[in-house]
Amino acid sequence: MITVALAKGALLKQSVARFAAAGLDFSAVLDPDNRQLMLPTPCGRARALLVRNGDVPTYVSYGQAQLGVVGYDVLKEHQLPVAQLVDLGFGGCRMAVAVKDSSGYTRAAELPPHCRVASKFTHCAREFFDALDLPVELVHLNGSVELGPITGMSEAIVDLVATGRTLRDNGLVAIEDLFQSTARLVGHPLSMRLDNGDLSSIVEAVRLATTTVGVAT
Amino acid sequence: MITVALAKGALLKQSVARFAAAGLDFSAVLDPDNRQLMLPTPCGRARALLVRNGDVPTYVSYGQAQLGVVGYDVLKEHQLPVAQLVDLGFGGCRMAVAVKDSSGYTRAAELPPHCRVASKFTHCAREFFDALDLPVELVHLNGSVELGPITGMSEAIVDLVATGRTLRDNGLVAIEDLFQSTARLVGHPLSMRLDNGDLSSIVEAVRLATTTVGVAT
Repeated sequence: MITVALAKGALLKQSVARFAAAGLDFSAVLDPDNRQLMLPTPCGRARALLVRNGDVPTYVSYGQAQLGVVGYDVLKEHQLPVAQLVDLGFGGCRMAVAVKDSSGYTRAAELPPHCRVASKFTHCAREFFDALDLPVELVHLNGSVELGPITGMSEAIVDLVATGRTLRDNGLVAIEDLFQSTARLVGHPLSMRLDNGDLSSIVEAVRLATTTVGVAT
Repeated sequence: MITVALAKGALLKQSVARFAAAGLDFSAVLDPDNRQLMLPTPCGRARALLVRNGDVPTYVSYGQAQLGVVGYDVLKEHQLPVAQLVDLGFGGCRMAVAVKDSSGYTRAAELPPHCRVASKFTHCAREFFDALDLPVELVHLNGSVELGPITGMSEAIVDLVATGRTLRDNGLVAIEDLFQSTARLVGHPLSMRLDNGDLSSIVEAVRLATTTVGVAT
């Protein structure tokens, strides 16, 4: 049986739609009353594993799921050995450096050396500031990163920005992008290599559905 | 102004009650419609910082909050420099090793060497298995740790157990405890040292309220 790791939250609905195009009906995971974390498709050919965004690469890299859908931001942060198969186009957002609107900074390079930067994505942030040759002290937070500058704990944050509303609501402004992120179809490398055609037919159907939907999604 | 970091979730209601006994009214954070992360008390003497459980020690250790309430499990996992002031008694749970009911293991020491153990608390788990002299491969998960043994990714898990219902519902059983956990009042060490009496009077009032409530809570 094929196991697909799906991330709870914002990416779930469109992930289910893409797999539907490949003939796999995971719509049961969208039922708000569903409490199960492992759900088979009605056809019995596959099952969905409903996990946290950050856990998708873990299940796929250990081969507990042969396929998975997860944001590029998570892949870049965790650096686990999974194969990136298809850029699904949805879930678009960007990883950005943001500061207080009143701070006057317009580029990341203007931040004072050894200042504090709060982020959920400390690996991505470390890589970015290392490339700038700007030494900063990274503070790892698990949520509500915008509180960093508000409380005065950090000069800046590195966080995902979709609409930019959370930043505006908190008097923050994005000054530089690290990278763009979209949802990706990922695979367990060994399973892909040993595949008898089942996995690749799903991957191809998802790829086709993605191309057909195009940039509109 | 005194800033108190409060953890969202299970500990929030009782945290507010303890501070009420100390004359600080943080009840606004319990309003389900509240979207603010930083709320002053009506008296203007203090403000609450509403953050994730795992972020409380961060805000307190950096001094952005002088006081905070957080579970002992989080303190033990993160090992940040905060002062433990009062054991508040509520939020009781235990950190335990659990395995599949059908596995037959009755003690952690029976687990096969180099088996996989999934946990959100990998530091606590590492310390425990090191003390047992049992080499295991720790798999860090962010949520739904019970999926580890269910999917076959791990032989065991290390997780918080309160009522034990999640374990039972997933066919798992706790076989050994690492430690007991309760909510703790923590303080920023330097703020405590420089305190002119404001902080210590709050700490004493919370301690008194805790002793009065006793083990009943």
